[in-house]
Amino acid sequence: MLKVTGTFLDEISFDIPHHNWGRKEWKKDFEAMQAIGIDTVILIRCGMKHFLAYPSKVLMKQAGCYEPETDVVEMFLDIADEMNINFFFGTYDAFGIIPFERSVEINKDVIKEAYDLYGHHKSFKGWYLATEISRRKLGAAEAYAEHGMLAKSLSNNLPVLISPFIANLQSHDDPELARQEQIAHEKDWRSILSTIQGAVDIVAFQDGHIPIHELENYLNINGRLIREYGMQYWTNCETFDRDMPIHFFPIKWEKMYHKLRIAERTGAEKAITFEFSHFMSPNSAYIQAHGLYDRYREYAGLKERD
Amino acid sequence: MLKVTGTFLDEISFDIPHHNWGRKEWKKDFEAMQAIGIDTVILIRCGMKHFLAYPSKVLMKQAGCYEPETDVVEMFLDIADEMNINFFFGTYDAFGIIPFERSVEINKDVIKEAYDLYGHHKSFKGWYLATEISRRKLGAAEAYAEHGMLAKSLSNNLPVLISPFIANLQSHDDPELARQEQIAHEKDWRSILSTIQGAVDIVAFQDGHIPIHELENYLNINGRLIREYGMQYWTNCETFDRDMPIHFFPIKWEKMYHKLRIAERTGAEKAITFEFSHFMSPNSAYIQAHGLYDRYREYAGLKERD
Amino acid sequence: MLKVTGTFLDEISFDIPHHNWGRKEWKKDFEAMQAIGIDTVILIRCGMKHFLAYPSKVLMKQAGCYEPETDVVEMFLDIADEMNINFFFGTYDAFGIIPFERSVEINKDVIKEAYDLYGHHKSFKGWYLATEISRRKLGAAEAYAEHGMLAKSLSNNLPVLISPFIANLQSHDDPELARQEQIAHEKDWRSILSTIQGAVDIVAFQDGHIPIHELENYLNINGRLIREYGMQYWTNCETFDRDMPIHFFPIKWEKMYHKLRIAERTGAEKAITFEFSHFMSPNSAYIQAHGLYDRYREYAGLKERD
Repeated sequence: MLKVTGTFLDEISFDIPHHNWGRKEWKKDFEAMQAIGIDTVILIRCGMKHFLAYPSKVLMKQAGCYEPETDVVEMFLDIADEMNINFFFGTYDAFGIIPFERSVEINKDVIKEAYDLYGHHKSFKGWYLATEISRRKLGAAEAYAEHGMLAKSLSNNLPVLISPFIANLQSHDDPELARQEQIAHEKDWRSILSTIQGAVDIVAFQDGHIPIHELENYLNINGRLIREYGMQYWTNCETFDRDMPIHFFPIKWEKMYHKLRIAERTGAEKAITFEFSHFMSPNSAYIQAHGLYDRYREYAGLKERD
Repeated sequence: MLKVTGTFLDEISFDIPHHNWGRKEWKKDFEAMQAIGIDTVILIRCGMKHFLAYPSKVLMKQAGCYEPETDVVEMFLDIADEMNINFFFGTYDAFGIIPFERSVEINKDVIKEAYDLYGHHKSFKGWYLATEISRRKLGAAEAYAEHGMLAKSLSNNLPVLISPFIANLQSHDDPELARQEQIAHEKDWRSILSTIQGAVDIVAFQDGHIPIHELENYLNINGRLIREYGMQYWTNCETFDRDMPIHFFPIKWEKMYHKLRIAERTGAEKAITFEFSHFMSPNSAYIQAHGLYDRYREYAGLKERD
Repeated sequence: MLKVTGTFLDEISFDIPHHNWGRKEWKKDFEAMQAIGIDTVILIRCGMKHFLAYPSKVLMKQAGCYEPETDVVEMFLDIADEMNINFFFGTYDAFGIIPFERSVEINKDVIKEAYDLYGHHKSFKGWYLATEISRRKLGAAEAYAEHGMLAKSLSNNLPVLISPFIANLQSHDDPELARQEQIAHEKDWRSILSTIQGAVDIVAFQDGHIPIHELENYLNINGRLIREYGMQYWTNCETFDRDMPIHFFPIKWEKMYHKLRIAERTGAEKAITFEFSHFMSPNSAYIQAHGLYDRYREYAGLKERD
């Protein structure tokens, strides 16, 4: 049975309201993660626009970022060290406040700075390249390759993870159109994967853009391609609901159940999620997440939580 | 005093994020319902698009629906049996994934299947026709008539409920335009009610589409017409707020108070709500609902909850 | 250190779902306010459209408002009396259901009625003029002047507060455009402040419309102008997040931290917030607010809450 053993940490939120947790609350949430078998946390990004998760001299100087009140990267690594959890460091995402080419250059300095500051932590176990791409933004693949190679060379070859999305470019009601769409998807991703081969070790596609009855076709293609290019096929089982008027609340368990089973059937080696703390945690401000945690525990054969 | 004695169950959510409750949480919520006098629960629909509330062979085969992980219809009926609560079964709503005419045909098989599977439950006490209509979708009335007649004939004449909305077609600032609008509303609904006479027993209009200062005019028309066609006039006192940027959170008590009093003055025989568990329950993930429950208890003369 | 010592009360909600609190819950929330040093509460408005916070004969008769179930103004004043908290009374906001000129006239009767009904309360310590203006609605300044003069003359010169917003009319990426924008802002506000001089005592600009890296420039201008016209410069440190898809949830603490520090550096005499109960309270239905309360307490040097 495929279980969720990794989660993003959505510090530096783009579109999810912040919990305003301090160290005590984060520690408690890491414990709730570990209680269901999560062994890996992935910082979604170390900075976004003007906001930073650590006091980066590089980003304050080169991108005009604000000095943060606290260093949450250090805090996450401390907790992860204590708890034997693996931490992946996410790069900076400018989200358009500086030109893309410049953000690619700055991120190289960020990668060096981050490894200097945090590489000594025993829980520092990998890198996450924060820019999300689909087949429509082929330009980003070269940046992935550069960042991945740099990060690996600095860190004695620590693994590099990406989590792209499946671009849902056309209506899929017509089976022939759907088939053509899948062929185009495969073609584009061959191009991307050949570009990033050697620089990226793990690919975990987001699973929330495709209707459930089409998902298996896409995950089969993805799994086959990823293995063909020598990478690990993980799935990012999104735990928020994309089709509700409130953007975004925890997903209905049944949808997560279907998505996990499809990922398992298509051979995913590991499931991670975006993300535990808001959408699946018994500590979430969204109480629907407490129910999702309970339903998931039943599914995973774990006893009822206290 | 008109009290809320029925509620929809929003399993198979269209636009309300799911609580991810299991049997234990649902049982507890049925208890909170019963504690304020709710004696009737109405399944809003047994399926929507590809999702099902019970493992319907009809819908998996004919509409391509997904096999659900659990049978919540059975669960609701079990709890209702235990607690002496009346259960109304809601039909399937394709929401456009199959043509309307075809969904009308499929729903006939659904009604038969559902009565075969669940008709033996002592709490199975009625039918709810899930498609919501207003006067602009006159075509749906014929489907109501067909489904209502079939359901009644199968089930020894169990009552059939619909809960349409009042189409708010024009601005109502001008009193003369408002009056014309009301006349058009009455004319259209005469046509609909004459079509469904004999097939539908209860009409509970949604009360949230009309400003409070116009609502009494509409409910007076509705009550008069419904009685004229020999049906029961109930009200669906919506407990969510339609005029907030967050779609949808619990309503402000004062609005519910005004709406209940208007329904009472216009002779409503029973008030139901869409819906207790999210918007009015002390167990809701929306904590504003806990306050609404408390305010409603004060209004209904019930002692403070523990 | 600049601390938050005042809050709006968002009774008669425009766009924030209501908590459905009764007196017991409000009392508890006033205690949570006082525990962090809040000494002033400001009723955001006494009525909006058809809804009223007190049974105003003026507004029921002249604006067609609904008779409210309870008198929350009396309730707030009672609690404020008990707890030695200052209460500012907010005027009526028609939000377009009657013409602006007429609402200006009606508000004069509202001010008289409110002082007749509630002026004897020892906690009745000031007035808040509810219409929010920016430099684009210069017409409102004359109404402020009329209402402020009337309110002060009736009430032995109690202070009058306004809380306008900074109109963000143009993109600010270009430094020269940003500078021109600031000059235009200063010019318009000189005109407004000269119009309301003598009628308004306190100006607390909303701080959420301007990016943090531009905020200091604007607050410097505002502070200088407000003092020049002999008024008190307060800041309205908004505690909700304007840049999330959910409108509106509690702000990330880091943003509040930056805004408070900028207000302090620019000489603000007092910080109030819109608003404590939803966005910063340990009693809020938004659990993110509980975290904000905790982070703010740490910042303010207060011990951990129980």
